[in-house]
Amino acid sequence: MEAREPRYGPDGLVTAVVQDAATAEVLMVAHMNRDAWEATMRTRHATFFSRSRQRLWEKGETSGNTMHVRTVRIDCDGDAVLLQVDPDGPACHTGERTCFFTEVDVATEDAGANTKVDS
Amino acid sequence: MEAREPRYGPDGLVTAVVQDAATAEVLMVAHMNRDAWEATMRTRHATFFSRSRQRLWEKGETSGNTMHVRTVRIDCDGDAVLLQVDPDGPACHTGERTCFFTEVDVATEDAGANTKVDS
Repeated sequence: MEAREPRYGPDGLVTAVVQDAATAEVLMVAHMNRDAWEATMRTRHATFFSRSRQRLWEKGETSGNTMHVRTVRIDCDGDAVLLQVDPDGPACHTGERTCFFTEVDVATEDAGANTKVDS
Repeated sequence: MEAREPRYGPDGLVTAVVQDAATAEVLMVAHMNRDAWEATMRTRHATFFSRSRQRLWEKGETSGNTMHVRTVRIDCDGDAVLLQVDPDGPACHTGERTCFFTEVDVATEDAGANTKVDS
């Protein structure tokens, strides 16, 4: 039996991975509580729970960079969800297209080997 | 200043998203502690920390479905990492290629609208 809805953890959250529906680029990772999940499903705008601010947070509510949800998937044990979205703008608060713009050199791992790979 | 190494949470973990390097499909979400991170960087085999078993876990150690790490990226605040991998086999313990094989209908959300989309 596969998960059909999120299984919220002891903290009431599931991990949400956001992927660009058009390019397949992984844009960001955030968290959802039940309210965030329900808001996302109802509005089709990606909505998360901010652990630092302890409140619901619709992506783009200040930046205008709304993420329009095209598909939602749940993983096999229900504690992670994957949103495939059409973003209105950069996912990252830094202005980068994705939050994962820093690549680490796997071979050496020292700090000098880190490079910025996206702009 | 961007993150150059993971920032482990209060539980000593960061979220790891695994993406197929060839197809860009998101395969799974897991967690890493410092030992898992170091093992992944050293061996280039995706290695996680199992919260249920409380031990390091090299993906494929029993199934043989090793994930060969091609690139590693860290997100802007350092609490999530993205591994782009060449997997030797299915990511999911169910035998599915990805753990995210269950799609939820965004429009209606009721259980009957869930469909299995991958095989």
